Amino acid sequence: MKLLNVQLGDRSYPIYIGQNLLSDSQLMSKHVTGNKVMVVTNTVVGPLFLEQVIQSLEVGGKHVDVVTLPDGESHKNLETLNAIFDGLLSKKHGRDTSIVALGGGVIGDMAGFAASCYQRGVEFIQIPTTVLSQVDSSVGGKTAVNHSLGKNMIGAFYQPQAVLIDIDCLNSLPQREFAAGMAEVIKYGIIWDNEFYQWLIEHRREIQSLSSEHLISMIERCCAIKAEVVAQDEKEHGVRALLNLGHTFGHAIESEQGYGNWLHGEAVAAGTVIAAKTALIMQRISLDEFESIKHIFTSYGLPIVKPVDMTTSQFMGHMAIDKKVLAGQLRFILPRGIGHANVVSGIDNRTISDAIENH
Amino acid sequence: MKLLNVQLGDRSYPIYIGQNLLSDSQLMSKHVTGNKVMVVTNTVVGPLFLEQVIQSLEVGGKHVDVVTLPDGESHKNLETLNAIFDGLLSKKHGRDTSIVALGGGVIGDMAGFAASCYQRGVEFIQIPTTVLSQVDSSVGGKTAVNHSLGKNMIGAFYQPQAVLIDIDCLNSLPQREFAAGMAEVIKYGIIWDNEFYQWLIEHRREIQSLSSEHLISMIERCCAIKAEVVAQDEKEHGVRALLNLGHTFGHAIESEQGYGNWLHGEAVAAGTVIAAKTALIMQRISLDEFESIKHIFTSYGLPIVKPVDMTTSQFMGHMAIDKKVLAGQLRFILPRGIGHANVVSGIDNRTISDAIENH
Repeated sequence: MKLLNVQLGDRSYPIYIGQNLLSDSQLMSKHVTGNKVMVVTNTVVGPLFLEQVIQSLEVGGKHVDVVTLPDGESHKNLETLNAIFDGLLSKKHGRDTSIVALGGGVIGDMAGFAASCYQRGVEFIQIPTTVLSQVDSSVGGKTAVNHSLGKNMIGAFYQPQAVLIDIDCLNSLPQREFAAGMAEVIKYGIIWDNEFYQWLIEHRREIQSLSSEHLISMIERCCAIKAEVVAQDEKEHGVRALLNLGHTFGHAIESEQGYGNWLHGEAVAAGTVIAAKTALIMQRISLDEFESIKHIFTSYGLPIVKPVDMTTSQFMGHMAIDKKVLAGQLRFILPRGIGHANVVSGIDNRTISDAIENH
Repeated sequence: MKLLNVQLGDRSYPIYIGQNLLSDSQLMSKHVTGNKVMVVTNTVVGPLFLEQVIQSLEVGGKHVDVVTLPDGESHKNLETLNAIFDGLLSKKHGRDTSIVALGGGVIGDMAGFAASCYQRGVEFIQIPTTVLSQVDSSVGGKTAVNHSLGKNMIGAFYQPQAVLIDIDCLNSLPQREFAAGMAEVIKYGIIWDNEFYQWLIEHRREIQSLSSEHLISMIERCCAIKAEVVAQDEKEHGVRALLNLGHTFGHAIESEQGYGNWLHGEAVAAGTVIAAKTALIMQRISLDEFESIKHIFTSYGLPIVKPVDMTTSQFMGHMAIDKKVLAGQLRFILPRGIGHANVVSGIDNRTISDAIENH
């Protein structure tokens, strides 16, 4: 088992990465301080792992209740959030309850936001079960739900007590979701770590065949980068924005297609290629680097072009409302070579539309 | 104009108390840093003060949008909260927007909670227009909405950038609401400041006839006590709980009667008398002090008995789910004499039901 730490003063917390963590009663009880626990999961993840988690918690002497939500990004809204509050209140959970998020990014985001505002804040523990949530969304304290007019518009910065990453969960993950999660993994390479990027190219076969050794190394590296970035800039006033590479374009794709039709990671992959094309036009990356970025996404089974019928003005409409709009100016995360990136504003519309139309 | 400070490190903020503040464009602009402002108000307060506030902000060069919510505690829920997000998103407010709460406690609680979670947190300014919100809810950063199963169950600790208290707003406040606000004023006397309690008895006529001098002194003293308590214990792990005198019983009354049928302050007054009766049974206060508490509430036009048909078991049912339930034990705030109070747990049910049934 690997152990990392997110350094945030009195909000610091550990990330455990390994196998068989769901049955580790001692580890789980260590981070659930109260006697009552509410596990938040969904209809897909619940049948796979819930029994094991409940057993581990009960062996540790905890009283466990469960809220099972419908699966998918289309349910990540205030209405579903309220179902968590219904469960907590009808089971009379007090301020000393602990909320356990068991599932992917959507569950982590919703359970985390619920924890941040139930009785103005209760403990929570992340048990991410997908690649995407294990390498990205479970670490760093960003929680949110969507609004019909924009993604992740309602939320909180709220750090968990601990993150338990059990790579055994990935064995039952559908191939399409595994691929989608890899978009965020590749992102870390592009924005932060060229060596890791090369390692991902080199070890693609082992990763795709779920070699435990490689998965643990991969997730550990991603979490270490994320922990470093978050420790520097918890509330995204600066460097943390780099983690949004491909997300401005990606969110536009997700919004236009309806949440869930394109998986988040798929939209991020295509969005990153548009960002890379923007960088190419602006001579921030070479043609070889641009081709390499397209190739690594393709090799991991990810889309590299926008939805065929989506127009530039549709992108622009969604991006205008995207939360990265600051004082009226759109900001984009653009790579500089591979392994570095910057926040860039003031790019002319022509460059953006060229990149959208022809990437 | 009086100026107080809430000392909370990098979350410290000023409270201004005076007359004519709504037309003080300079003061308002000083605390609204972005160019866009969303004023959140309701159908009752809006027609009275909105024009003045918009003008002051526009003179300061701000672009002002408005969300007008329905009036009353019965609308303090996630659905109405969403109307604020609808307004912010449809008018394309970014992370640099400022939310101004113009209204009573319900508006402050909802606008503050919306500010805490819109795009994971934007600036907000409190302009409280009722006694209750001027002396209590606008200071200290508690924000929340109600859930059908409990009051203030969903919320955040989120401090404003500034609180602007214009006592001229009280001229148009209905008498019943003025009285309800006085319940929280009297509360400060009982839990913290015997001298202030005596002053309230002595100057009742001036206060009830809205003497500016007396209102400013009164509000200043309440805000000073609240600021002191909050600076010591922002997140209510200790002394801040004292501010909930009468609230456990009071919330039960509000829940049972349906939010809004009893005003919050009315329920707090009757609840405080039940708490005082509990204290009397436990010999924490004298019979004279108990009679004095009943008398001061009555003299300020407040109820001192529970709803006639409300049973002890109805109280107990609501209190079991009240957020003050901690690890299964009910805790009550009880006065010790007048001017002091403590958090007390482990009181036997018989004492509680005696106090409820006969106060």
